Amino acid sequence: MRHLIDFGDLSRAEWDSLYHRCSEIMDHPADFLDACKGRVMASLFYEPSTRTNFSFQTAMLRVGGTVFGFADPRSSSVAKGETLKDTVKMVSGYADVVVMRNPLEGAAKAASLYSNVPVINAGDGGHMHPTQTTADLTTITRLRGGVDGLSVGLCGDLKNGRTVHSLIKAMAKFQGVKFFLISPRELAVPEYMRAFMRENGMWFTEVTGLESVIPSLDVLYMTRIQRERFVDPLEYERNKGVYILTRRKLERARRDLLVMHPLPRVDEISIDVDDDPRAVYFEQARYGMFARMALLTDLANQPRMDPGAVEIGTVPVCRNPRCVTQAEHYLPPLVKQNGGLTCCAYCDAALE
Amino acid sequence: MRHLIDFGDLSRAEWDSLYHRCSEIMDHPADFLDACKGRVMASLFYEPSTRTNFSFQTAMLRVGGTVFGFADPRSSSVAKGETLKDTVKMVSGYADVVVMRNPLEGAAKAASLYSNVPVINAGDGGHMHPTQTTADLTTITRLRGGVDGLSVGLCGDLKNGRTVHSLIKAMAKFQGVKFFLISPRELAVPEYMRAFMRENGMWFTEVTGLESVIPSLDVLYMTRIQRERFVDPLEYERNKGVYILTRRKLERARRDLLVMHPLPRVDEISIDVDDDPRAVYFEQARYGMFARMALLTDLANQPRMDPGAVEIGTVPVCRNPRCVTQAEHYLPPLVKQNGGLTCCAYCDAALE
Amino acid sequence: MRHLIDFGDLSRAEWDSLYHRCSEIMDHPADFLDACKGRVMASLFYEPSTRTNFSFQTAMLRVGGTVFGFADPRSSSVAKGETLKDTVKMVSGYADVVVMRNPLEGAAKAASLYSNVPVINAGDGGHMHPTQTTADLTTITRLRGGVDGLSVGLCGDLKNGRTVHSLIKAMAKFQGVKFFLISPRELAVPEYMRAFMRENGMWFTEVTGLESVIPSLDVLYMTRIQRERFVDPLEYERNKGVYILTRRKLERARRDLLVMHPLPRVDEISIDVDDDPRAVYFEQARYGMFARMALLTDLANQPRMDPGAVEIGTVPVCRNPRCVTQAEHYLPPLVKQNGGLTCCAYCDAALE
Repeated sequence: MRHLIDFGDLSRAEWDSLYHRCSEIMDHPADFLDACKGRVMASLFYEPSTRTNFSFQTAMLRVGGTVFGFADPRSSSVAKGETLKDTVKMVSGYADVVVMRNPLEGAAKAASLYSNVPVINAGDGGHMHPTQTTADLTTITRLRGGVDGLSVGLCGDLKNGRTVHSLIKAMAKFQGVKFFLISPRELAVPEYMRAFMRENGMWFTEVTGLESVIPSLDVLYMTRIQRERFVDPLEYERNKGVYILTRRKLERARRDLLVMHPLPRVDEISIDVDDDPRAVYFEQARYGMFARMALLTDLANQPRMDPGAVEIGTVPVCRNPRCVTQAEHYLPPLVKQNGGLTCCAYCDAALE
Repeated sequence: MRHLIDFGDLSRAEWDSLYHRCSEIMDHPADFLDACKGRVMASLFYEPSTRTNFSFQTAMLRVGGTVFGFADPRSSSVAKGETLKDTVKMVSGYADVVVMRNPLEGAAKAASLYSNVPVINAGDGGHMHPTQTTADLTTITRLRGGVDGLSVGLCGDLKNGRTVHSLIKAMAKFQGVKFFLISPRELAVPEYMRAFMRENGMWFTEVTGLESVIPSLDVLYMTRIQRERFVDPLEYERNKGVYILTRRKLERARRDLLVMHPLPRVDEISIDVDDDPRAVYFEQARYGMFARMALLTDLANQPRMDPGAVEIGTVPVCRNPRCVTQAEHYLPPLVKQNGGLTCCAYCDAALE
Repeated sequence: MRHLIDFGDLSRAEWDSLYHRCSEIMDHPADFLDACKGRVMASLFYEPSTRTNFSFQTAMLRVGGTVFGFADPRSSSVAKGETLKDTVKMVSGYADVVVMRNPLEGAAKAASLYSNVPVINAGDGGHMHPTQTTADLTTITRLRGGVDGLSVGLCGDLKNGRTVHSLIKAMAKFQGVKFFLISPRELAVPEYMRAFMRENGMWFTEVTGLESVIPSLDVLYMTRIQRERFVDPLEYERNKGVYILTRRKLERARRDLLVMHPLPRVDEISIDVDDDPRAVYFEQARYGMFARMALLTDLANQPRMDPGAVEIGTVPVCRNPRCVTQAEHYLPPLVKQNGGLTCCAYCDAALE
């Protein structure tokens, strides 16, 4: 692995190896205090994301590295009058690893074409956020000994949730995972996710209520339902209580259930759940830091490498208006095959 | 000591021990270069305060630790849509010590209820700013050998000045301190501060002129008088010159006087005083950094600790509109006794 | 050298020594990982300049030092209600070296009067930016073995370009440099720069076309031409293509030409030039970081020193509206001789 753009790029063996290093770090943090000594991480956040930013920063600091960058492009002149390519060329001259958050889909992939050092995708619009998935899997593996064979409830907005889609895809690397997909019908998982689960022989069921399935779960992954997602506001009002986790609903859950949430929560988990030992969403954030430590000890220590000449594009081939190719016209027109479809290699949108 | 919320929580012995470590650091800084190696400080400034922020940051860096955080919540998404509790839970998963500045009174106390690591109050509204007091006492102790028995002039706005009130309270821990309280009548110390000094058997006198008492002083602590504090602007104009320290006024002062100021100054100390060896306000800022180094070598090295379950509140019992309980409704309704009064345990306001 | 305010203050021997250390760092970076251990750099950017800021930060981090400061005074309260002197006094109590970017000409010089630690000018308005010059000279020396005897083309806006003027002045320290000054007549070098080159016996020629001279060059230094600089917009349109470097124009250039640019570029270098091995503008940014590492290993390790008492000014003697003395009235009225002229010692403007 040279860059981490999409969790799907990792093989099961690469994940196992990453988790192995992560557990060494959790067990013996003092052994890693100088693991990235002399290494510098660029943290380029083209949109604010305090949690992810803090997690990456502290991860790098805890393995002995250092950090520079910007937390918001408004307070930076980088975003002005310069292409993403030129910024990456400059920054990858200063840094040993580049962490990038960008509102455009495919931005991290685009950056990786020009960077002399590894690029880590810290979120590219609604597209990918692979280190959230490493945080989630690390939490489950650490607290339950593994992912294989678990019954996982995913609750909330399953239609729009990037986190949830990534987690489902990632779990295809494991054996015998069962999914309980808990959402209002309006916000059920998209058809292509169902197709993905069928193709990968994954067991799943779709339900509209949380209470009935809670006793079956090893993991309950909560996400937020936003009022704006509903066509009919009354429908929102009728539904919202169903998807709020309360202490009472937890009564019938297993004693070793893990309640997870990518944070920030709003009110989808009642505050009185926090003191239940099954509520691990704050630990989950901390495990995310350890997972990033493992990732950085690998990527920040790779030798610098000239990315080589890159074809110069002229017109975007992708029609997705949020795709990075719409803004950076010099990008080469890369495509890839997803299943049987020809897709944009930056944002994964299907090409016509 | 696990948190530093209020300087008053420190016993005289704890202060002496803190100062002892501080003087070791000043005498042998090279011995402390790795004192916080591997430790990470979160610096959460919900309102800008560059001086305090810089002082804490450089303190942590100089003892080998590292720093992350935000300098202003506008450039952070933390403040949006998340409770203080959730932010503290997340951040205290990443950090070994949390430094917090917040415009709400009692915010640091509230944070300490949920944090897995020590919390240091870097100013909670107009309530407390304990490390300013440690800076002040360190300066005096270092330059005069101790605090006991000194004659201390406090000059300027003594009615509204948090710094001055904290210093008076802190000095109750020492023997034989005499206070010369120098202010316009409109801005004299509040009655409860007079009561405090009487109860603690502290000698004090109140005067309206600086010149007459300057020859008696060991320490002259200057503070700013803001025009807005005066009901009558003419009164401000008539008064302001009286409370400006000039080179001429210094002529009759002792040769070992210390002229102090919490900074920033506006015009209450004439610029021609700066080169007088008795002007120590810039050194005072530097001593504040050393005092924070001493504090951090202690607090950042404490083991993580689960704060345990916390009662969930519903309605604030305190009526102070600037109290953190007005904004964070889940906080438990804690009270304490101050003298004979029942007070809010967050902001110290008396409860009816 | 105690401060670096103006590259002109460096003797040839001092430059050679700085470059010597820089090349040791480039050859053996691991030997310098702790060169600034325990040292803290203040980075005071009163106007945003991401590239310069990132370069200084990473330079300090790569020699084992640490960094604090602000990237933009809007996100800092330092700029409010405090003189530059007081800020410098405070910050130089916390830091071992101060790096300052300021829109006022002469600001770094002013800061150096009050600082207990070395001050490095990271750009003071349109006046000086000495570390850009060290970046440029390091690039040329590293890639061509030296500067003496080279033919250097300077292309673009030679009238307003601070970078270009600094580079010409710096090259007066070397032997046998030939300048090809390539610009529209409206944007030719100012008369005082011609006078400077004649006085220093430097060979130069002025041309309006790039193509004819390109085969003669060892170094081609490109700069941006801004439309706003032209009185007649049509003149701009007629001219601009002439000063854009394309792959085709490069065909007749020497195989060991260096194409340089201070960055950011807009469109003055065509993107298809980037993959030509003669295009070294991204490496140039990286060499700038190494040059700053060399500078910081020297300056950040100097002992603290009281700058002593400074005369207090009252009225600025300089009439340059962008001079720091127009904003900070207490600055002493310093003058110096430039050639035969009496000039402001802060901004170098001639005094009447």
